[in-house]
Amino acid sequence: MGTNDTDGRFTRLFSEGVTDSMDEPGYGSWRSISAPEAVSLSFGFPFPASFPNDELLAAAEALFDEAPETALSYVGSGAANELASVVVERARERGIDCDEDQVVLTNGATHAIDVACATFLDPGDLVVVESPTFMGALKLFRNYGVDVAGVGMDADGLDVAALAADLERREAEGRPLPKLLYTIPDFHNPTGVTLSRERRERLIELAETYGFVVLEDDPYGELRYHGERVPSLAALDDSGLVVRVNTFSKTIAPGVRTGWLIAHEALADQLRRVNAGGRNTFTQGVVGRYCAEGRLEENVADLVEAYGERRDHMLARLEAEMPPGVEWSEPDGGFFVWVELPEGVDAEEMLPAAADEGVVYLPGHLFHPDDSGRNCLRISFSHVSFDEMERGVAALGRTVRSVANVEGAASD
Amino acid sequence: MGTNDTDGRFTRLFSEGVTDSMDEPGYGSWRSISAPEAVSLSFGFPFPASFPNDELLAAAEALFDEAPETALSYVGSGAANELASVVVERARERGIDCDEDQVVLTNGATHAIDVACATFLDPGDLVVVESPTFMGALKLFRNYGVDVAGVGMDADGLDVAALAADLERREAEGRPLPKLLYTIPDFHNPTGVTLSRERRERLIELAETYGFVVLEDDPYGELRYHGERVPSLAALDDSGLVVRVNTFSKTIAPGVRTGWLIAHEALADQLRRVNAGGRNTFTQGVVGRYCAEGRLEENVADLVEAYGERRDHMLARLEAEMPPGVEWSEPDGGFFVWVELPEGVDAEEMLPAAADEGVVYLPGHLFHPDDSGRNCLRISFSHVSFDEMERGVAALGRTVRSVANVEGAASD
Repeated sequence: MGTNDTDGRFTRLFSEGVTDSMDEPGYGSWRSISAPEAVSLSFGFPFPASFPNDELLAAAEALFDEAPETALSYVGSGAANELASVVVERARERGIDCDEDQVVLTNGATHAIDVACATFLDPGDLVVVESPTFMGALKLFRNYGVDVAGVGMDADGLDVAALAADLERREAEGRPLPKLLYTIPDFHNPTGVTLSRERRERLIELAETYGFVVLEDDPYGELRYHGERVPSLAALDDSGLVVRVNTFSKTIAPGVRTGWLIAHEALADQLRRVNAGGRNTFTQGVVGRYCAEGRLEENVADLVEAYGERRDHMLARLEAEMPPGVEWSEPDGGFFVWVELPEGVDAEEMLPAAADEGVVYLPGHLFHPDDSGRNCLRISFSHVSFDEMERGVAALGRTVRSVANVEGAASD
Repeated sequence: MGTNDTDGRFTRLFSEGVTDSMDEPGYGSWRSISAPEAVSLSFGFPFPASFPNDELLAAAEALFDEAPETALSYVGSGAANELASVVVERARERGIDCDEDQVVLTNGATHAIDVACATFLDPGDLVVVESPTFMGALKLFRNYGVDVAGVGMDADGLDVAALAADLERREAEGRPLPKLLYTIPDFHNPTGVTLSRERRERLIELAETYGFVVLEDDPYGELRYHGERVPSLAALDDSGLVVRVNTFSKTIAPGVRTGWLIAHEALADQLRRVNAGGRNTFTQGVVGRYCAEGRLEENVADLVEAYGERRDHMLARLEAEMPPGVEWSEPDGGFFVWVELPEGVDAEEMLPAAADEGVVYLPGHLFHPDDSGRNCLRISFSHVSFDEMERGVAALGRTVRSVANVEGAASD
């Protein structure tokens, strides 16, 4: 509660979930990790030139021209109301057999996760996450007063065998089973890895056996630069237990704050009822108009090319600059590279030295429900220029060499 | 659950609040009350010509021109980030002493109420509302599995003396006291009445005595057509227990879906933490740019004139068309008139006959937590044309005369 409630007079007003988590830093608190002179490799922000300003402005003009009476209304323009069918069409291209009744439009993906939390979770419920996982989701879960358990990952994503063993033990010992499992199967945040098809199928079997919801968060799925697509969990699912979260934040721009859930109708009915915050019909109309002109496909193709070059450049710079004993993931898509420093090096403690050298990043413990991963860090190639990437990775290499007392570079 | 979950396999997945309320119609279900050939007096929608399309498009152009790299980003443009100060400035004009730390921007007022619910409410908590009240808020509260108790109203708003007596009885009998009281003090939805200053002061005293949050929802406060402003609850409050909800939905347009909370810092910190859904920086930038040019004040002045004429016209038509035994509120602002039919006439049962005569409205029981108010209905002058208002009120008069078997008009 901090300094504002020293006498505690407000504290008893809060819900159980808020009370349990009120001393934790808020959503987005990690954004304070910056240093004015340093290159920031911290954030999964799209690069500024990627924003389709002109096309969205043209879409806004067309929207007001075509629907002057409904563009800003509660009920929304035709373009806004056709957005669910755009979502269905794109989902079907990904092999997900769904219709508009299964789509719940939200104010972004984080809001979609929040709606899923409110729909499924009570205080004390168990939520399983990949460890590490998206820290924004961790913060959301904590607002609900739930217990969060992490399951490890490797180069093929979530360790589903470890999950299966844990579930079996929990059942045998009469301990709580999860209500919901949260996963980012494609180009995972923060590790960049992709869950293999075999593990996806096994994960769905486990959901059926133990009766939990699989919340599939797929913001990066369309941004693949190498390799072959793996079917989404929603495409593989027959159980109705997979709830898919997606967003235009990475394929158009974060500022349009438009996301959605796709779920079995029986779940979608309740998700829609909980999603009471109302629609930004203005933005939905602009985005709908933009998509109706085929702009989204063009934009995604451009982004795949641009981010792919960035990804290659960052991996090349890491290869050139990192000393021995440092390992990193090689993502086929998305925004992130996960770096493992030699054991004993603490990425959070190293941060001031790194900032002095000229780079900041996000320390790995932020992404772990149990505060582990202290020798890891996340860097992103999505936002910085090539020049900044070069300077940032070089500064990171110097910092690690100095802190870890290692010599030479990985490529030596 | 309905037809989609006949075997109940999904039902156990839901949270307690959702389980308790899952058979209820969803948010906005009342919008299905319409008939193609009938005039709809049902909805609190702004009239289409009120939407500042050209000004918002110009604001979008200026936004992209001034902030091409941040207009669509996570962090947002200067215009988006100055919106909290616009909110503070307008709140101060209403006598509310606050600063930006106390402002939490949300995706609309309903979302703001939802954030307040998530922050303060656990299943089983007691929420007190005016009876009748905004049905959207009733639906939200039900999602949280709370108990909702209504307190009656008269021409001066919430019956605060009845509330005081109820609180005293609850305390004496050891029954639960409210965690939160929800009120629309200015131009109440659905009744149109305004809470008197004396009652506002007494209500805040009761909140202090019994320790509950007062959630002041004020979407219509700037739209006053007659009489003198009454200070908002937030302006009268020294306890820190008043949380104010507001929105640009009625002063700019519903489609911009931009609202906010103003609260004591200790509460704002937690409201902000719960409000994790992220910001629509695009819309916030467009709205911020629009406000920065002084457009909001101009628009509000235009709206006050236009809605004031509509209000006068509707009251005149009611006076001309309603038979004896029918009473209605005479709102000084806002969008709504509350009509009380003779005892024994059921507004829901009358609806098909009204639709045949050429008008639809919202039956009063929708607004009552206990389904009472069956001889009441809400009509709105905000959305229809003058001609539609004339035809709609005339049709309503014919319907009441026919159903209630009364003769003549109120003005006879």
